[in-house]
Amino acid sequence: MSPCDSFPFCFEILHRSSRSRARVGKIRTPHGTIDTPNFVAVGTNGTIKALDHATLQDLKLQLLFCNTYHLMVQPGTETISKAGGLHRFIQRSLPLITDSGGFQVFSLAYGGVANELKSRGTKKREGSVLKVTEEGVLFRSYRDGSKLLLTPESSIQAQKEMGADIIIPLDELPPYHISKENLILSLERTHRWEERSLKSHLQNPKNQAIYGVIHGGIDQGLRQKSCSFLSSLPFDGFAIGGSIGKNREEMTELLSFLTPRLPQEKPVHLLGIGDLASLTRLLPLGIDTFDSSYPTRAARHGYLFTMNGTLDITKGIYRSDFSPVDPECSCRTCAHSHRAYLHHLFKAKEITALTLCTLHNLHFMIEWMAKVRRAICADLL
Amino acid sequence: MSPCDSFPFCFEILHRSSRSRARVGKIRTPHGTIDTPNFVAVGTNGTIKALDHATLQDLKLQLLFCNTYHLMVQPGTETISKAGGLHRFIQRSLPLITDSGGFQVFSLAYGGVANELKSRGTKKREGSVLKVTEEGVLFRSYRDGSKLLLTPESSIQAQKEMGADIIIPLDELPPYHISKENLILSLERTHRWEERSLKSHLQNPKNQAIYGVIHGGIDQGLRQKSCSFLSSLPFDGFAIGGSIGKNREEMTELLSFLTPRLPQEKPVHLLGIGDLASLTRLLPLGIDTFDSSYPTRAARHGYLFTMNGTLDITKGIYRSDFSPVDPECSCRTCAHSHRAYLHHLFKAKEITALTLCTLHNLHFMIEWMAKVRRAICADLL
Repeated sequence: MSPCDSFPFCFEILHRSSRSRARVGKIRTPHGTIDTPNFVAVGTNGTIKALDHATLQDLKLQLLFCNTYHLMVQPGTETISKAGGLHRFIQRSLPLITDSGGFQVFSLAYGGVANELKSRGTKKREGSVLKVTEEGVLFRSYRDGSKLLLTPESSIQAQKEMGADIIIPLDELPPYHISKENLILSLERTHRWEERSLKSHLQNPKNQAIYGVIHGGIDQGLRQKSCSFLSSLPFDGFAIGGSIGKNREEMTELLSFLTPRLPQEKPVHLLGIGDLASLTRLLPLGIDTFDSSYPTRAARHGYLFTMNGTLDITKGIYRSDFSPVDPECSCRTCAHSHRAYLHHLFKAKEITALTLCTLHNLHFMIEWMAKVRRAICADLL
Repeated sequence: MSPCDSFPFCFEILHRSSRSRARVGKIRTPHGTIDTPNFVAVGTNGTIKALDHATLQDLKLQLLFCNTYHLMVQPGTETISKAGGLHRFIQRSLPLITDSGGFQVFSLAYGGVANELKSRGTKKREGSVLKVTEEGVLFRSYRDGSKLLLTPESSIQAQKEMGADIIIPLDELPPYHISKENLILSLERTHRWEERSLKSHLQNPKNQAIYGVIHGGIDQGLRQKSCSFLSSLPFDGFAIGGSIGKNREEMTELLSFLTPRLPQEKPVHLLGIGDLASLTRLLPLGIDTFDSSYPTRAARHGYLFTMNGTLDITKGIYRSDFSPVDPECSCRTCAHSHRAYLHHLFKAKEITALTLCTLHNLHFMIEWMAKVRRAICADLL
């Protein structure tokens, strides 16, 4: 009996590399299959910035990550629920994942953990987190300054109303610089929040899967503890959250320690990492999905991915370069435009530049991941 | 012998309405046919704002209007020429029309003639026109403040380098409020400029067509004079330029006077008018093409056209309206999204909103014009 016979969500491993912990698999959800390893694009407000869903459908992006906090603020979960859920609201037929809202609440207060492009531009709202208690997190809405309480139960409730295929329990995102004592307190509370989230979810599973989020910062002992505790609970998969290091070396070291300690038969998601240099290091560790706004944000700044490296299309050297971004690329942008045109659109501040570059980078990520899967199947990675 | 046998540009009238001066025809150009009457979308910098060319190709927009002045500033005609012309630079296989650059020079100084949406937001550069002489117009570049001289010959030269299917001679755009004496001086100079432009064009026609631009402001006598003079020259078609009135009544009156005085076998283009209320009045006068940035600019402000009127999708009444913009519409936006989603995208300040709404309004204009042609063929208009 396949695990899919009894539940619409399942993870099937098709091949394990003989060279590393990398594996190729399929995550089956009520809205379709996600081939793994795979890249998960971020569509914060229910859209990839500058792309429409018909284009996204053509690109065959298998999983889209939407942010509960932003969707709670606008349009509100009530509106999404009235539409019949997030898939119907945004008219996407393929799988969706939502987060708990906690990441945004804390990252707007403390700044993000990811090595974000132009992170200096991130607006930090000092004091937007008013109080973290056992009950949940009290914060000020970035929209109107009103006080809102996000609890494990209210986050699950919001994610039930939206109905994404995969949901995430509320966790606390402590800042990178934190005392061990406070990190332990935060981890224990996060564990209790996740347990409450799971309980709340299981009262009405609604064909959704829920991933436990492993925490513990950069402390291996605490990460081990988090793996042990959360693995003992019936989560459908695991996400790796919190601070995973201040640079790529620290991150690789921590994740090399962490991944063998996770249940091997369940999918593993890494939150917020999606740059190629990191992925190259992390794929051999057996991580199955990666979400990141990096490829789409990079595109909006004119950074275009190719198999021979990244181009900054805004540079003058592309003014009269009439070759496509990547001659090997089969995307709509490369089929219908050349570097000089994209360069011109950026210089002329045309929105179309953002659309064309986003389309290219997303297509690149999707194709790159397909190549990774073939490489794993051939035991080359 | 058809007029197309000897020249790649021709205008063929297929049907004349028995009820009005309206006619259905075809303009044949080296890059394809334009069914008339038709709407000409404005792609100032070589793109429709927020749309890519593959989408435009799907929409079957038959004629795109690009602005020489903006393209001279960025990327420069030299770059476009290096690419092999504007069609290749922007990778559009269908017909293009460029203006002389004069309209932008004068309208940036005096403000536009069209009833533009949010016209108060138009940036007027006082003093950007430094001097109008017999030779041409000396002005300051909006990019770097450098002094540039645009002459009939340099405008034609720029349009030769770009190679649009239809080009426009340099004209002066006098402000609406002008003394008759000065209007006469301006008209006479414009006529001399147009004659010089035509001469310059005919030295190297390059398979391009050139339209004479009728001027004379709102003075019927001067408009008559302009028709007589320009009709005597071998222009391939005529455009109506300059001030045509301060409101729709004045415009309709002037154009009712003007259109019967133009050669009936040549295509007539109205510069800068494209709102449905005006088109409804002007189509019976036998005008063949209309360019306007109104439908695309309106889209970017959330104004969506339907057969039952225009929706302001940013209004709260659409927050939970899960019906398509127009249930009768076959565009990609209506197929894949509902009003509440578009409303949400505007509220969340997502660029995707601009793409989806632009696509809808352009599709609407293209379909509306196809209906107009059917109505004329059935003598209903």
